[in-house]
Amino acid sequence: MTFPARVHIQEVVTRDGLQIEPRFLPTADKIALIDALSQTGVSKIEVTSFVSPKAVPNLADAREVALGIARRPGVTYVALVPNLRGAEAALAAHMDELNLVLSVSETHNLANMRMTPEQSLEGFRAIVAAASGTPARLNGSLATAFGCPFEGVQAQDRVLALAERYLELGLHSVTLADTTGMANPRQVAGLVAAFRARFGEVPLTLHFHNTRGMGLANVLAALEEGADRFDASLGGLGGCPFAPGATGNISTEDLVHMLDEMGVPTGVDLARLIELARGLPALLGHDIPGQVAKAGRSGDLHPLPASLRRAAG
Amino acid sequence: MTFPARVHIQEVVTRDGLQIEPRFLPTADKIALIDALSQTGVSKIEVTSFVSPKAVPNLADAREVALGIARRPGVTYVALVPNLRGAEAALAAHMDELNLVLSVSETHNLANMRMTPEQSLEGFRAIVAAASGTPARLNGSLATAFGCPFEGVQAQDRVLALAERYLELGLHSVTLADTTGMANPRQVAGLVAAFRARFGEVPLTLHFHNTRGMGLANVLAALEEGADRFDASLGGLGGCPFAPGATGNISTEDLVHMLDEMGVPTGVDLARLIELARGLPALLGHDIPGQVAKAGRSGDLHPLPASLRRAAG
Repeated sequence: MTFPARVHIQEVVTRDGLQIEPRFLPTADKIALIDALSQTGVSKIEVTSFVSPKAVPNLADAREVALGIARRPGVTYVALVPNLRGAEAALAAHMDELNLVLSVSETHNLANMRMTPEQSLEGFRAIVAAASGTPARLNGSLATAFGCPFEGVQAQDRVLALAERYLELGLHSVTLADTTGMANPRQVAGLVAAFRARFGEVPLTLHFHNTRGMGLANVLAALEEGADRFDASLGGLGGCPFAPGATGNISTEDLVHMLDEMGVPTGVDLARLIELARGLPALLGHDIPGQVAKAGRSGDLHPLPASLRRAAG
Repeated sequence: MTFPARVHIQEVVTRDGLQIEPRFLPTADKIALIDALSQTGVSKIEVTSFVSPKAVPNLADAREVALGIARRPGVTYVALVPNLRGAEAALAAHMDELNLVLSVSETHNLANMRMTPEQSLEGFRAIVAAASGTPARLNGSLATAFGCPFEGVQAQDRVLALAERYLELGLHSVTLADTTGMANPRQVAGLVAAFRARFGEVPLTLHFHNTRGMGLANVLAALEEGADRFDASLGGLGGCPFAPGATGNISTEDLVHMLDEMGVPTGVDLARLIELARGLPALLGHDIPGQVAKAGRSGDLHPLPASLRRAAG
């Protein structure tokens, strides 16, 4: 097994994690969580989404959060933007990076954005123009890249063609997102290898969900093909509206734990991440899907059972 | 990625899964569950454990279950046996295979068996003698092969030396068990490769727990090294006494789902497995950790959202 020399961890809990929570997390709590995450060594934080408050009421405080956090040098602060209006707001809030999203699946894009992927791409031109001359970088996410809950598996050629369109528009990097947790490791290895063959060193992020238990297996498959940037959500928050009770995004602490155990450097302080994940149930009022926050690290040894302590004593 | 031409699925839910359940599952329910599992295409079923009812009250009906199930030709029916008394009972119940267990970690073996691994091996001689001349096969399991909750990681040399001792005793096959879910994919790949280099075609089973979310990633790593036999537990039942709230054994339906999605043949009827897993909460009175039973298969498509149906209509 050959792995990248270093893996970048990109935290999405306050965007992808919170957007489908049943309750609004107060702005001050969001800011405190992001400020704490800024100290853990993650490379990027997707702070929020500048989306209509009617569409995502949980993120109605996007501007307050973006302006309220303490920026730590070396961390890239990202906002998801669905349209020009959101992009302008994100630029006004000095975000380091804007994340544009379209779905590879036409049906999914129509359902989520009420336009075709082609119309989404057209709309992105105005965002590229607005960001031009600002220091903001632009990332293009391809949702449902590994499958659409309405259409099924998406052709690899179509995924790569849309990535190409992003790059032609002038975007700097691409995210392949497994929006509803349909990816399998063989498919991941194939798509990552094809992406790298076609686009060389264009920065590539993998965004996996653990909906069907394959999240970290998909990470492993991507790592073996040289992928070195992963989105993840503290506590594994996120979830999928089509799978009630199923787990959501891959958990940041479970991801970093696996990489730590395999000796792959991330620069992230796992102990601190676990502490933050263990604080989530009190903050949100429910249990979290992440496993390492419950089980502890593999290396956390347990005291001898009483019977052996007596024998030893 | 190269995978084995066929993978054997070995179901352990009625042994590893039920042994730590809070409630005794009635004997008739155990038998019905095993009989249903016998029809799914799994290669082996670990039916029960012939252990002292004081030690594991949930399996006090070992004999009734073993004699009550309908044996399906082609399925190997296994019982775990801790000692000669258990082995004699298992042989009297015509089990196809006896599964012997010792812990690689001396501390863990002392805690569980009240003897050293060396003493366990000595005790197994009598079991080998008792089984000799019967059609029963003998499998040797190495618990804590990927780490002990008291001692931490176990040296690979020690694991292989104990496997060698099993084979010298006359056992036919070996299981490497990650008893408390401490294994990581790099370690799995290394140990599987070392086992195969040393023991060639000796049948090897991998027994993983998903305690820290790495269960299917560990399967993937093992598959890539040619491993083709995996224990798994319907619904992901099992769990670990050291990690309250953490998940247990890897889930059979999640495992088969991943293999199906990757095109690796198992001969198992996934739809039927999912149906059986979905029946577990009613049987046991609690939710199950397995994900695919909740989320459905990756290929299970969802109806169009109402907005699009209206547009299409």
